[in-house]
Parts: sequence; structure tokens; C-alpha cells
Amino acid sequence: MNTAKPGIAILGGTGDLGAGLVYRLAKTGYRVCIGSRTIEKAQRVAKELLEKVPDGLIQCAANPDAAAAADLVIMTVPFASHVVTIESVWQQVQGKIFVDTTVPLVPPKVMRVQLPDGGSAAKLAQQMLGEDVRVVSAFHNIAASHLYDDHIDESAGDVLVCGNNPAAREAVIELAEDMGMTAWHAGAIDNSTVPEALTSILIFLNKKYGFEGAGMQITGKKKT
Amino acid sequence: MNTAKPGIAILGGTGDLGAGLVYRLAKTGYRVCIGSRTIEKAQRVAKELLEKVPDGLIQCAANPDAAAAADLVIMTVPFASHVVTIESVWQQVQGKIFVDTTVPLVPPKVMRVQLPDGGSAAKLAQQMLGEDVRVVSAFHNIAASHLYDDHIDESAGDVLVCGNNPAAREAVIELAEDMGMTAWHAGAIDNSTVPEALTSILIFLNKKYGFEGAGMQITGKKKT
Repeated sequence: MNTAKPGIAILGGTGDLGAGLVYRLAKTGYRVCIGSRTIEKAQRVAKELLEKVPDGLIQCAANPDAAAAADLVIMTVPFASHVVTIESVWQQVQGKIFVDTTVPLVPPKVMRVQLPDGGSAAKLAQQMLGEDVRVVSAFHNIAASHLYDDHIDESAGDVLVCGNNPAAREAVIELAEDMGMTAWHAGAIDNSTVPEALTSILIFLNKKYGFEGAGMQITGKKKT
Repeated sequence: MNTAKPGIAILGGTGDLGAGLVYRLAKTGYRVCIGSRTIEKAQRVAKELLEKVPDGLIQCAANPDAAAAADLVIMTVPFASHVVTIESVWQQVQGKIFVDTTVPLVPPKVMRVQLPDGGSAAKLAQQMLGEDVRVVSAFHNIAASHLYDDHIDESAGDVLVCGNNPAAREAVIELAEDMGMTAWHAGAIDNSTVPEALTSILIFLNKKYGFEGAGMQITGKKKT
């Protein structure tokens, strides 16, 4: 057990992205707590994941308890549960880094960008949680299937990391890189509009071109 | 002269992106008309570009005249001139494909996403021009400097092409590919939010990481 790594809660850790992150983080040596509204569901997912990562440090708890015990909290819930989940852990995440992965999809037209008022779910989270919580947005554009790859390669795409606190962004970038991803500082929390909205285009590309988990990679030449 | 290729007007063709597209299109064999508010400026830019492409078919005109003579119209003006330029060519672009490249940057905070009401400049253009104009959004994320490369390589990034008319999107994709770019159908005009907002992040990346013209490339594995 590597006690140097932060303990991480994945709120909504029973969904596709959440469970994928639990798997990947546990495989990378992090202590992970699956947060859920229904503890039975979390226990079932934990059991399944522990079969894939037998030495993984995976626990379960209700969302507020998971958040309370964690150093860093990652929220992976559907957009419809965004506000209610934030309200349920408001107290437990004060002073912490809170990673919002929420994609504001509005079914049934999930291939069409339909942003919430204010332009971004993560910006709303920052407003709700207040300045003592360092909200960082990340992991919107990584298809869950890539998280189970032996080696996360370029086809998974890069992670854009937005947030008003550069040190908190850096912590999330290190977490992503530790899992084998390429991640970039992408500016203030307002910029989370881009990875949130991009997901609709990636779903469109998957359908139109037959991709399995399309992603986005940053390109460019370094100045010489 | 290849009369099979459509004649193209570049409104605001004296700016960085506009002049770059004029150069690239002329080099690729298209008849191009530089549209501008001041004909003298257009003539000066045309002269400069003709030194680089001596056999290029480059003309100049006021924006409405350029639009009237063209088969396909590309608008490359600053966001502050977006509405007034659309109004000035409203009549001349009816029935045509109108490519909006506008990035809604709001100086001085150009590295921060600040979307217009409605979420997208191109969506606004479609609303203003009406359903007889096939508005397509494209070319937001290609740095002008890449347009002068001998060969546009992967470092330039891909072009996301949004619009409500798939055939019009396809025509713009063919144009982009003819110039040597990689371009993708990216869904309805509402999705233009993504390439428009992404530009702020690319400017951030250029500054933070020392890129010269950062861009974005689509990744993914094809389904087997």
C-alpha cells in the first residue's frame, strides 16, 4: 500500500465512467472509495472490480461518507443528478479538490450541444461549492472502454483539465498521467464548456464514422 | 484554369486567417475573391499573395460584390464585425453555402471562453440568414501560419465542420481536404460551440506550453 498517494472517492462510481476510473485508479495503486446512493449497488460493482484487480484497495460508502473520507473527490454522475449530488456532499468537500466530469447531455438529442445556463456544468459546481473548494473539470472525453485497456494509448485521446486554481489542475494532471493518460492545463473553469460540449461531437463521430470511443488529441509544433 | 472548382469569396480576406485561406485556395487552383470593406487594403493583400502564387486567380471586391460573384462564401472577420458583415451580404448569399469561421473572442480575456447568447456565432449567423442559406462552420482551429506550410501536416490539427445541411458540410469537407487538411462532419450548427470555444483553449496552450499554433486532432479506433 502506497500511503503517499491520495485517497480518492468516486461519487457515482457505479456508472460506466465512474467504474472505469475506480478500476484504473485501483490498478495504479490508489485507495479508492466507490460512492453511491445505494450501497448495495456499490458493493456489487466493487466485487466485480476486485475480481479484475485482486490486490486493489477498493471500498464502498454512501456518497457523503465517501467524500468525507477522501483527499480528492471525483464526481461521475449523469447531468440529471449533478445538482442534487453536489448538494449532498457540499459540507464534506469543503477545502478539497473536487473533480467534475459531468457532461451536460440532454436526452434524447445527445449528439447536439445543449449547454446549461452559464455555459458549463463545472462552472455551476464551482459557484455552488464556493471558493474554498477547488473545482477542476476533467475526464469528459475519455471513453470508459479505454480505461480497461492494458495500456492507454493515443487512440484514447487527451484530457483537457480546467479550473481556476493552477495547483489543483496540476494535481489532477498528475493523477491522469499516473493512470497513463496525456493531460493538459486548459485554463479557467469557464473553459470547461469545451470538453463538456465536445462529448456530443464525439458521440456524433462514433455514430457517423464507426469509431469505438472517439477522442481528441492536442497537436502543435513547439516554438524553436 | 479549372472551371470545375467553385469560385470562392473570402469576406474579411485581408486578416490573418482570411489571407491564409486566400493563399491556400489560390495555390490549390481555386478562383478566389478577397472581400473587404476597403478595396485598397484588399488590393494590397492581393498583390502580396500574388507574389507568392504568381499563377493564382485572385481578385478583389467590396464584401457584397465578392459575395454576389461567388459560388461559396467564407466569412473571416473579427467577432466585433460578425453581425454587421452578415447584414451587408444578406441578399448576396441567399441560396448559397456560407462558411462562418468566426471565433467569439472577447478581448482582453481571449484565453477564457465567453460565448455569445445562444452559445455560438455560427448558430446566430444561421438564424440571421434564414433557411435558404446553408450555414456551415469550419476552420476555427487552424492557425493561419499552417496555411503557408508546403504540406499541411498533422501538427495543424483537424477541422470540425458543423451545419444543419449534411451535403453543405460535405462540400466544405471536400474543400478542406483539397487544401490538404483533415476535416470531419461534426453535427448540427449548434455544435459549432465546440470549435468556437476551443480557440480560447488553444491560445491558452500556445502561451502555457510554447506551441506555435496548437490544434486539435480526432482520435479513436474503428469498430472491428
